[in-house]
Amino acid sequence: MPKVVDHEQRRRELARAVWQVIRERGVEAASVRAVAARAGWSHGSVQYYFSTQAELLNFAMRVITDEAEQRVDRMRLPADPIQAALAVLERLLPLDPDARTANELWVAFLSRVLVDPAARELNTEGNERLARLLWDQLWQLDNAGLLPAGFDLELEADRLHALFDGIALQAVTDPARMTPALARKVIGYHLDTLLRRGGT
Amino acid sequence: MPKVVDHEQRRRELARAVWQVIRERGVEAASVRAVAARAGWSHGSVQYYFSTQAELLNFAMRVITDEAEQRVDRMRLPADPIQAALAVLERLLPLDPDARTANELWVAFLSRVLVDPAARELNTEGNERLARLLWDQLWQLDNAGLLPAGFDLELEADRLHALFDGIALQAVTDPARMTPALARKVIGYHLDTLLRRGGT
Repeated sequence: MPKVVDHEQRRRELARAVWQVIRERGVEAASVRAVAARAGWSHGSVQYYFSTQAELLNFAMRVITDEAEQRVDRMRLPADPIQAALAVLERLLPLDPDARTANELWVAFLSRVLVDPAARELNTEGNERLARLLWDQLWQLDNAGLLPAGFDLELEADRLHALFDGIALQAVTDPARMTPALARKVIGYHLDTLLRRGGT
Repeated sequence: MPKVVDHEQRRRELARAVWQVIRERGVEAASVRAVAARAGWSHGSVQYYFSTQAELLNFAMRVITDEAEQRVDRMRLPADPIQAALAVLERLLPLDPDARTANELWVAFLSRVLVDPAARELNTEGNERLARLLWDQLWQLDNAGLLPAGFDLELEADRLHALFDGIALQAVTDPARMTPALARKVIGYHLDTLLRRGGT
């Protein structure tokens, strides 16, 4: 049998090296050459996969986003819909090393969204996926009869998405302000206000 | 009398040029040399003020943040405290060209916060100033008797700050999702939920 090279595995290794270079030296330093050196690959073999820095960064962002979604998909959720929603939100916020990596790369990536159309498209896709996931958490609460009649699911999903992004951003860029404990408190309190209004 | 050079004015011009280079070519392109060229200055005269790219970017961030605060300070606020709070929040969100500039620079700057201690410090300072401003809006509503007894001002200020950052971030990086109309709607709705709970 011919030797099978696991291209996906190799690309994931590279994505990891991209993140390490960004974390150590900033997004501007994540050149094809620097990432090759960090991953212990030759410049030529990285170029086999990626010819530009932009491609490399966009790919790394996509890998890290996919992995975050897979972590959520693999979760065993509590039966209680409130606890389940909280667990999903907390799994995606930068509260453990894996999620912190994903969120740090996201922040490094955001500056590129302003200038690179491919990065912008990827960011929009990522937002759509997160928006659906958050909408779904609210829908499940609604379906369980926990939200008040006339609850504006669309608007509340937009509000939850913005709040989520703000917490994630602050947790990565200002961890002394947005500690893991405060992140959990704010998101838990927010869900609580949605439910409490259902009880009035 | 000796000729007086308005250093502050010249530094503000440079800050503007930094932003223009970032906007056109990304944060990694904002070198001392590129900014000098964009501002129409010699490389040496820019170096008179700033010796490194990091100093230049941090300075630009500080100028833009100061200007945003001055715009808020100069506002004539409506007498109604709810309308006044909304007006302040909407003034700082990227809903007009000046505030959009400030917020775009903020997003470009965030990637540097991960790797540059001076940028991190500046970001923390900026967060503290915004936190005080947002806290003050809630305090004014409370002072006017518009918030319910037992309202948790600290936690609500943290929630408002995260929501505000998330809206600003999405408005800059995904304007098709977070349109100015939606930004106004979400922030208005959020204030409304705080007040409505006071009425139950």
